Amino acid sequence: MLRNDQLAEWDRDNFFHPSTHLAQFARGELTHRVIKTGTNCHIEDRDGNKMLDAFAGLYCVNVGYGRQDIAAAIAAQAKELAYYHSYVGHGTEASITLSKMILDRAPANMSKVYFGQSGSDANETNVKLIWYYNNILGRTEKKKIISRWRGYHGSGLVTGSLTGLELFHKKFDLPLSQVVHTEAPYYFRRADLEQTEEQFTAHCVAELEALIEREGADTIAAFIGEPVLGTGGIVPPPAGYWPAIQKVLKKHDILLVVDEVVTGFGRLGTMFGSDHYGLEADLITIAKGLTSAYAPLSGSIVGEKMWKVLEQGTDENGPIGHGWTYSAHPIGAAAGVANLKLLDELDLIANNRDVGSYLNKTMTDALGDHPNVGEVRGEGMLCAVEFVKDRDSRTFFDAADKIGPQVATALGAHGVIARAMPQGDILGFAPPFCLTRAEADEVVEKTAKAVRTVLG
Amino acid sequence: MLRNDQLAEWDRDNFFHPSTHLAQFARGELTHRVIKTGTNCHIEDRDGNKMLDAFAGLYCVNVGYGRQDIAAAIAAQAKELAYYHSYVGHGTEASITLSKMILDRAPANMSKVYFGQSGSDANETNVKLIWYYNNILGRTEKKKIISRWRGYHGSGLVTGSLTGLELFHKKFDLPLSQVVHTEAPYYFRRADLEQTEEQFTAHCVAELEALIEREGADTIAAFIGEPVLGTGGIVPPPAGYWPAIQKVLKKHDILLVVDEVVTGFGRLGTMFGSDHYGLEADLITIAKGLTSAYAPLSGSIVGEKMWKVLEQGTDENGPIGHGWTYSAHPIGAAAGVANLKLLDELDLIANNRDVGSYLNKTMTDALGDHPNVGEVRGEGMLCAVEFVKDRDSRTFFDAADKIGPQVATALGAHGVIARAMPQGDILGFAPPFCLTRAEADEVVEKTAKAVRTVLG
Repeated sequence: MLRNDQLAEWDRDNFFHPSTHLAQFARGELTHRVIKTGTNCHIEDRDGNKMLDAFAGLYCVNVGYGRQDIAAAIAAQAKELAYYHSYVGHGTEASITLSKMILDRAPANMSKVYFGQSGSDANETNVKLIWYYNNILGRTEKKKIISRWRGYHGSGLVTGSLTGLELFHKKFDLPLSQVVHTEAPYYFRRADLEQTEEQFTAHCVAELEALIEREGADTIAAFIGEPVLGTGGIVPPPAGYWPAIQKVLKKHDILLVVDEVVTGFGRLGTMFGSDHYGLEADLITIAKGLTSAYAPLSGSIVGEKMWKVLEQGTDENGPIGHGWTYSAHPIGAAAGVANLKLLDELDLIANNRDVGSYLNKTMTDALGDHPNVGEVRGEGMLCAVEFVKDRDSRTFFDAADKIGPQVATALGAHGVIARAMPQGDILGFAPPFCLTRAEADEVVEKTAKAVRTVLG
Repeated sequence: MLRNDQLAEWDRDNFFHPSTHLAQFARGELTHRVIKTGTNCHIEDRDGNKMLDAFAGLYCVNVGYGRQDIAAAIAAQAKELAYYHSYVGHGTEASITLSKMILDRAPANMSKVYFGQSGSDANETNVKLIWYYNNILGRTEKKKIISRWRGYHGSGLVTGSLTGLELFHKKFDLPLSQVVHTEAPYYFRRADLEQTEEQFTAHCVAELEALIEREGADTIAAFIGEPVLGTGGIVPPPAGYWPAIQKVLKKHDILLVVDEVVTGFGRLGTMFGSDHYGLEADLITIAKGLTSAYAPLSGSIVGEKMWKVLEQGTDENGPIGHGWTYSAHPIGAAAGVANLKLLDELDLIANNRDVGSYLNKTMTDALGDHPNVGEVRGEGMLCAVEFVKDRDSRTFFDAADKIGPQVATALGAHGVIARAMPQGDILGFAPPFCLTRAEADEVVEKTAKAVRTVLG
């Protein structure tokens, strides 16, 4: 068996980790952690440390770790057929079954699903389809995509442009010119503290209208948004936001892409975030919750309106020039089928509504009055605590003080994993859907302790 | 058990297949085929048809179908830990081990590997890293990427721009402006039939020099190329091509990205195509052969020169803003480790050299003199037959005649899968590395029969 010190050396010498300080890691200044196994909400590393993972990996292990039903489905598929492609009408029993299961669960106006491997590549597919759609309709200038500041839609070049976070733009020459950004629907960070939530929503709508006016509606193809901002801070929208935004989009014939990578398949306590907020999407992005991350799989669910134009496009131009070798990969498809079955069998979305609201309530009770806590917010099985230097004036800490990361580290020392969100001092929680009330209590107690350690 | 007609209906109603004529498929005019299982070079569909897959899926099932060692490794990983992320220094025994195995096999000047899920996303990573690199070095204008016409580097927006094929550009507004294309190294399709191979190489070099001159070397960051053109037609480079191209790139301080998605891990009879042609890459793209497609996994292998600058970048700017949730996915990593072990244990690269050259020789013997065969070419376990209307004048068929697809269909009727390459009438072969001489004979005989059926 490999020794831990041997692995540590190989790791430093060969492995380029994502979202990592590369120089510090190479110099051995960062934690190196080798994860070994997991059960429900807990993971265990190779040194024997057990942690309560209150972020479900990267909010993706929705059904929890160690689900042997999914493992068995993956094993059976690997044994029978690990791979064949899905080009030109090829499929497997699992991929076809999963396509039906997705459409059965998706909002009523959706038509077909295109499979990818990651949320990023699904949004890449979405932009390709949007451009193709408007070309087939002869609207060759209607191509720009509106995204929101603090939206997260991927880490590629175009998808990283859709993402509205500095970390993903800086030094990468992003955003590219095809993407324009509008106001983040982030009431707590409104510029004008006097605004009510409704006034702030009106402000967001006015900003969107002004952007469309400035760019010209005939140059804007689509608007992309997460039902609840995810990596941008875990922020539910202000009251009335989505109906008002949708009205503007309809008026200007702008497609709506709902990025449900985080919210899809139950995180908000409903099957889709679109159900939760009454969104009528033209495209829905899915990934994480589709397989609970047991295998890489993503999807673009295409609405009926766009699908008809795509069909017309192939009648006019032949087969569509878009394909990933691993589209509808059999292992991912088998994992997806087993995962969605388990989600139903264990009634995990109902547990999300129950324990998620319990987590949000107890977190608010424990920390809502702390002088350095500006807001505790959440929806379903999502929760965030945002730190401020001063509550009354809503003054933020300097990013250099790294308050968020410090609290996350202190919490980690107590055996609970939360995520210091990348922009602002925000501690994010997105536990597996199987979180129990006792585990929610543990998360809250230890978070309160960590906050006191760092902030008094 | 699900009935076949039930699956066919679900498929038409819900599944958006890649690279497919969507309207024909929805109308039931295209073959719908549900693949069930496979062993070595053969696959079997749900109707009981058995096929010899001489394209290894999409030139990716390199070790062949049904390898129970890899299936067992996937099953064990799924059972123990299906997922944890690799952000901020996290890993698993499999992902760390695989990173070492890759670097052990890669050319000497390579330093680290960044894992993705697909060849497309690995090239996306490459472009991000190239832009970051030149920003850290303060060369903010040195950003364009040179690719070749007929190169294949992915199906996304930027990666589809790198790809130099009409199917992937048309109606998608590609290529984007950050990518410029130069001459395809495709001797058979040279404009001037009088040119010798050496003269054609000199022409390619002159075209590259002229492009750099036109754009300005201080605006060109990198050059990307496959050692052997893949989807563009399976075309080995003309004599002396790579040394001459590399000389130009070095002179102008242009990085070299070698896209080894098809050639990596043995397809040319060497571990990497870079070994085969003496390429000194700054970045190497890997995917298909890394896992033989048993699970989605790709990688960007970063050379020492770039790595040092990336380290400097994170010292100056903090953690790098690039991450895929499924980077170094445990299932993919476990599949990769088992796959590379099997490649060694079965000595499959040696078999590639032997049976690959046998396949190319027998194909040439069988078809080299056919009046509608312009060229039989290949390298390692890659082979292509290019059809022409007239040999002497090298006149091509109209694309509308679909000669390539017709031959592929006729060959399929004989139980052998080859690929009609998307641009030109070219039949491509890229069998699993375990192809036997008897199977090579079968492929050649049936191909000759199919050619005679279509072309006489």
